[in-house]
Amino acid sequence: MESIKVFAPATVANVACGFDIFGFAVDAPGDEVIVKKRNDKQIVITKISGDEGKLTLDASKNAVTVPIIAFLKKNGIEQGFDVELHKKMPLGSGLGSSSASSVAGVFAVNEILGKPCTTKSLLPFSMEGERIACGSAHADNVAPALMGGFVVIRSYNPLDIFSVPTPSELFVTIVHPDIEVNTKDARHILRNEVSMKNTIAQMGNVAGMIAGLMQSDYDLIARSMVDFIIEPVRAILIPEFWEVKHAALEAGALGCSISGAGPSVFAFSKGQSTAEKVAMAMKTAFEKASIHCNAYVSGVNIHGPKVIN
Amino acid sequence: MESIKVFAPATVANVACGFDIFGFAVDAPGDEVIVKKRNDKQIVITKISGDEGKLTLDASKNAVTVPIIAFLKKNGIEQGFDVELHKKMPLGSGLGSSSASSVAGVFAVNEILGKPCTTKSLLPFSMEGERIACGSAHADNVAPALMGGFVVIRSYNPLDIFSVPTPSELFVTIVHPDIEVNTKDARHILRNEVSMKNTIAQMGNVAGMIAGLMQSDYDLIARSMVDFIIEPVRAILIPEFWEVKHAALEAGALGCSISGAGPSVFAFSKGQSTAEKVAMAMKTAFEKASIHCNAYVSGVNIHGPKVIN
Repeated sequence: MESIKVFAPATVANVACGFDIFGFAVDAPGDEVIVKKRNDKQIVITKISGDEGKLTLDASKNAVTVPIIAFLKKNGIEQGFDVELHKKMPLGSGLGSSSASSVAGVFAVNEILGKPCTTKSLLPFSMEGERIACGSAHADNVAPALMGGFVVIRSYNPLDIFSVPTPSELFVTIVHPDIEVNTKDARHILRNEVSMKNTIAQMGNVAGMIAGLMQSDYDLIARSMVDFIIEPVRAILIPEFWEVKHAALEAGALGCSISGAGPSVFAFSKGQSTAEKVAMAMKTAFEKASIHCNAYVSGVNIHGPKVIN
Repeated sequence: MESIKVFAPATVANVACGFDIFGFAVDAPGDEVIVKKRNDKQIVITKISGDEGKLTLDASKNAVTVPIIAFLKKNGIEQGFDVELHKKMPLGSGLGSSSASSVAGVFAVNEILGKPCTTKSLLPFSMEGERIACGSAHADNVAPALMGGFVVIRSYNPLDIFSVPTPSELFVTIVHPDIEVNTKDARHILRNEVSMKNTIAQMGNVAGMIAGLMQSDYDLIARSMVDFIIEPVRAILIPEFWEVKHAALEAGALGCSISGAGPSVFAFSKGQSTAEKVAMAMKTAFEKASIHCNAYVSGVNIHGPKVIN
């Protein structure tokens, strides 16, 4: 195989109550990467589309190639690649844009080389892409983008990640408003301390979320989708957040919160038709304030990245 | 039916990472209560054994009768009872002694009256017993004592409680050292704030614990039995705690932490024979410091209170 094209999915991190520990992948949107073997050892970004010229072509500094370089070095593989990156999702949207690129690149190279490594073992390399893009190697977007499904990062040091099954009728609505939130700013406005009361309440919701997902208990999922710690602070960065959330819940969503660091807002619903009604309601709420937005409705993507034609 | 005898189990609250939200019941020890119908409306404590004279015979102030009085009042039932309480477990041990009494009393009265209420609906009354005994109406001992099994209190307001299945080979070792810790003191030494870092790490363990229990993943249970918030503070109140914990882990326990507010220490193990080895190791560690203790090995009690002959 000389060339391969790979899709890696967008992801929703935090998922209401699970700051830095929960994330899941969606069917769409996502990034596409094409890698081609070269006759030398170089890693070259030959093309980037869909980024409005914002991403660097320097392979040592781009989230799509940094994981590839780390992977090849670690495995002692001296093969060069041309890399094309097609961003099919907005940058800085809170949908794990850099993670999708980080995962797609190294997954493609592992595939084209005949899978010398397991998919899960690609995680530390993908996290290096996240580090170059965001300043820290968080795993709550990268892990679900790579492994698919709903993922829990139990521990960062040592890295300990596991997957949780999700109910078959669980659908996701994502609405991306056309405004900018810098991930680093979104982290800086958070407090370093949490009240004991909020810690206990949040732990209760984390437990409820895991049990609700594993038992297909939609009511328990809904009751557990409450974030006492992050959402009240970050909501300030998203105009109309409370109106959009209210609209989602009124339209029948199980719960609604900020996707990652925002500005995208996501909701869970039982059934696709409800998720589509919720999308309309959320979009309308943003547009009332003249904020243009894109809406996506999707199942939870249990496969992660995939080779496409 | 004129008379009934009921057993209600001891319970382990907090369970390492789940401060105020996790609790489970054990097969032994526990309390026994005998209630007999009277010919008037009075609630009278006729006998208490096993308390070394520490508990009051005043029915309006004892954890065994306060729930009964609240239950009868709420349901408009004008029937009096004689109540005998046989403490078969140590007071102030961190094993939910007052909860066992609170549950046994009201469960017995509900039974003798032909079950006008469901078992779960007895919870608010039992919590009143906890309030009279401990100063606050916590549910992490009362709920598992009443419902059996491993219980999560997702929320206190509104009260939202659910059960989690446990693996068949999960065994509990409890060691109760003969020292005193006051529950109110144990609560007062806790800080009101938790670092964001510890909150995130603890949430990861809460998620891991629930998934581990539900998937019978003993390794995940073991990795998740880490408490960054409470144990490091309360361990100060229990002489030899770290030596006892080390001995438990060395003997093969999955994890080991403080039961409730202490001083009892509990461990989970895979299999009864390991749990018995762990009991010996923990007991030896306490006794090296000349601290006398009692050890119990038990499965997780999935039935809660029961009528006995």
